[in-house]
Amino acid sequence: MKKSLIALAVLAASGAAMAQSSVTLFGVVDATYAYGSGSVSNKSQLTNSGYNSSRLGFRGVEDLGGGLSASFWLEAGVNNDNGTGGVTNTNNQAATSTGGGLTFNRRSTVSLNGGFGEVRLGRDYTPQFWNLTVFDPFGTNGVGTTQTLNSSLGGPTTVRASNAIGYFLPGNLGGFYGQAQYYMGENNSGTPNKKDGNGLALRAGYANGPINAAIAFSETKFLTGNIKSWNLGGQYDLGVAKIMAHYSNDDIKNGNEGTGFLIGGLIPVGAGEVRLAYSTYKIDTVGADPRSNKIALGYVHNLSKRTALYTTFARVSNKNGAAQALNGSVTAANRNSTGYDFGIRHSF
Amino acid sequence: MKKSLIALAVLAASGAAMAQSSVTLFGVVDATYAYGSGSVSNKSQLTNSGYNSSRLGFRGVEDLGGGLSASFWLEAGVNNDNGTGGVTNTNNQAATSTGGGLTFNRRSTVSLNGGFGEVRLGRDYTPQFWNLTVFDPFGTNGVGTTQTLNSSLGGPTTVRASNAIGYFLPGNLGGFYGQAQYYMGENNSGTPNKKDGNGLALRAGYANGPINAAIAFSETKFLTGNIKSWNLGGQYDLGVAKIMAHYSNDDIKNGNEGTGFLIGGLIPVGAGEVRLAYSTYKIDTVGADPRSNKIALGYVHNLSKRTALYTTFARVSNKNGAAQALNGSVTAANRNSTGYDFGIRHSF
Amino acid sequence: MKKSLIALAVLAASGAAMAQSSVTLFGVVDATYAYGSGSVSNKSQLTNSGYNSSRLGFRGVEDLGGGLSASFWLEAGVNNDNGTGGVTNTNNQAATSTGGGLTFNRRSTVSLNGGFGEVRLGRDYTPQFWNLTVFDPFGTNGVGTTQTLNSSLGGPTTVRASNAIGYFLPGNLGGFYGQAQYYMGENNSGTPNKKDGNGLALRAGYANGPINAAIAFSETKFLTGNIKSWNLGGQYDLGVAKIMAHYSNDDIKNGNEGTGFLIGGLIPVGAGEVRLAYSTYKIDTVGADPRSNKIALGYVHNLSKRTALYTTFARVSNKNGAAQALNGSVTAANRNSTGYDFGIRHSF
Repeated sequence: MKKSLIALAVLAASGAAMAQSSVTLFGVVDATYAYGSGSVSNKSQLTNSGYNSSRLGFRGVEDLGGGLSASFWLEAGVNNDNGTGGVTNTNNQAATSTGGGLTFNRRSTVSLNGGFGEVRLGRDYTPQFWNLTVFDPFGTNGVGTTQTLNSSLGGPTTVRASNAIGYFLPGNLGGFYGQAQYYMGENNSGTPNKKDGNGLALRAGYANGPINAAIAFSETKFLTGNIKSWNLGGQYDLGVAKIMAHYSNDDIKNGNEGTGFLIGGLIPVGAGEVRLAYSTYKIDTVGADPRSNKIALGYVHNLSKRTALYTTFARVSNKNGAAQALNGSVTAANRNSTGYDFGIRHSF
Repeated sequence: MKKSLIALAVLAASGAAMAQSSVTLFGVVDATYAYGSGSVSNKSQLTNSGYNSSRLGFRGVEDLGGGLSASFWLEAGVNNDNGTGGVTNTNNQAATSTGGGLTFNRRSTVSLNGGFGEVRLGRDYTPQFWNLTVFDPFGTNGVGTTQTLNSSLGGPTTVRASNAIGYFLPGNLGGFYGQAQYYMGENNSGTPNKKDGNGLALRAGYANGPINAAIAFSETKFLTGNIKSWNLGGQYDLGVAKIMAHYSNDDIKNGNEGTGFLIGGLIPVGAGEVRLAYSTYKIDTVGADPRSNKIALGYVHNLSKRTALYTTFARVSNKNGAAQALNGSVTAANRNSTGYDFGIRHSF
Repeated sequence: MKKSLIALAVLAASGAAMAQSSVTLFGVVDATYAYGSGSVSNKSQLTNSGYNSSRLGFRGVEDLGGGLSASFWLEAGVNNDNGTGGVTNTNNQAATSTGGGLTFNRRSTVSLNGGFGEVRLGRDYTPQFWNLTVFDPFGTNGVGTTQTLNSSLGGPTTVRASNAIGYFLPGNLGGFYGQAQYYMGENNSGTPNKKDGNGLALRAGYANGPINAAIAFSETKFLTGNIKSWNLGGQYDLGVAKIMAHYSNDDIKNGNEGTGFLIGGLIPVGAGEVRLAYSTYKIDTVGADPRSNKIALGYVHNLSKRTALYTTFARVSNKNGAAQALNGSVTAANRNSTGYDFGIRHSF
């Protein structure tokens, strides 16, 4: 999720003086050779986003005076192994766009910022996603991604929501931070699915010195069963290592319930970093409680702040009928799967 | 339709000296909460383009010497509530692209400019669209959009055409302006639809001091019936207010005929502007002449030249079987519909 | 294939000093009126890329020190007659994306460069394509495009491949150059099509003073029959003219075999250039050997380095059942087809 940004020098159209405002072009191109091995079949790929999500974005801030500012952010996912764009979801109900063209699926927002905080409108991450990714040593990218995301029952709004009205607390609260988000499925009233895709979510946390911890809650209406999710996570920076953990719960009304946790850490080693994690997710369902456990170990070598080489190895074990497999391989129920990534991440 | 532009500082690749040419990155991110109420159902949305159309564009000009210049313009519609792109139309016959990815649907042209005027090739607004939007206080955006556009029988080329060869008069004709456009459906000869989507359109006007007025005419061949449209519009700036009106007529060969008009105005109020309009469109068809009338009232508050807050309220009444509804609501024939927008427009 | 590039002035986000790295925004907007005439039907179009392929791209280089650098290249095809994007192919097997939205179909790569050469990952031209386009006076664009490409049996990877790992020799080998590329279809093991879309290709050449010559070889696995292609080409610059020729062969296992060649030249004339070529392609199949021959003659007039007007006329003759037609026209077997382009190319 790290982004190295480059500000384009911007001149106001009406003159040569440097404007007080700027537009930033930014992006990540991350390519990875990914191999997955399962009991049924294996897969070999040149894919993307093994370390950071590939993207191309445009963002800017305008100072409105009096402590107010306006800003925008348009960020498109890029599948740089084949040139297609990321898929978005227009109504928070199901993937309704599969065209392959570039969309600002990662974020497309306009904000008004001031002493009161930030009001942000558009498509954005949901509050319930942050703890899963911030407190995952693998940042929910690549073969090491936490099982709390990979197996999540959280539904279409687990990561992002469209049609969202968001609010963020200001940054000067002594380490306390928080956000609220309301998102709409935009169905007509008087229909059975009138609330399908509507949701409300909250997140609150505290970051100060070596500590960072947060809790989040969400409830999303779905015709197939409303989903309540909550999670909490935290990290502590010991200097020689940063340790982190999170717990998550997703409860579908009159349906299954999923529970997961992760424990892991990041260990700086010279210009690099060792990453390791153990994560698990269990689904409470009738007859069996399928569970998958993953161990992941990786190393990132920074050639610069913008460019890194990386590799990750992971192994997932399945129990009680689970059949999770890694990197596109297929594995039978209760069998293991292993996979590895080897790639380069370049940001701009 | 207002665009605040920012020129990116551009250096020639071969040296550090400022080039005589420039590429401009520009855009609008406009998010609006939109509510519509009808006799059948209501709708609540976080949508886009309530005041100005959201977009991302790239454009540039090259001075060729001798009064000649070349220029390009690539402008993509952006649905910033969900990240998708605007839909284009490749053959002027029907919406043939629905993928959701970014396309330069708003404009994609290359031009040669000189003392003779401008020759512009590619996808662009049609001449017959301009009077409807320039002389609408709501600029054909949001819930206040004139009924002469909302109900128009003008067909797929009412707003834009692909495969167009356009010509514009030079700008130094003492206030007179004009343009011609020929667009092609690109069907093969020897087929029943060989001319489907072919069209020719003209616009001529005069703008000087407080006055601006223009007339436009178009004829487009469609397999389902050729459409002739013509319209005229004008505005007068009284200083305390700008008043405007337009009249439009769309005639389908061996089919229905539509007639509409608008009267409205813009009233500056401090850093803001009050907008109001009455518009109507009537369709002459067999047995009944459905008509819809709209009143719209809005206010725009400019936080800066680039950023504005706005709200618009509108009410449409239906007669003789018409069932026009606002902001995604549904209303029965001859029933009313109301709607409002509340949003923020940020341009860059 | 010529690209005029403009480097955007870039400031590091963290300070005002000029960064050692840069991001370049570049593109081509090429619009052409194209007419084709065949024995069955004719076609009239305002289309794109008659001289150079229309595109919009972003690229950059980061100096990593010690002779190493990282770079990225994201380049999207743009159909500027209607605003849609170019179509990519995610698995090297068939066109799997038709949405119409912008994709980085032309190139989406990240590279690590050093004294060892360049390792390039992502979607890129295949080695087997270069000789067809470099040694075609019409650069495989527009109505004059060599028949060795137009009729090619080379399959989905004739021009580009996704999921590719490429290697390029360094540039300091006294005129010798070369590249290797391995691309993956990314199918699961244990399936009949497990190797579908996998391929390996090589190219080697020598360029020095007036001479440039190269040879290329590729083998791609397809479920419908593996394809081996090889070709060679060369050019010699006499000063008053540049003459060029190439030969190509595509062999489908247990299937047809295609063989083609081109001879042509470029003649500088003041600010312009005359282009001419004769090309042919013959398919060895059961019962008949369909062959098409093309003559093409064109002229490019450069208004500047970035902007040119051009026209091309071509005529294709068909034998033994071939039915190649130009610019979207349709012609019967063994009948001729003619076509011409007249357009403007503007690059930035």
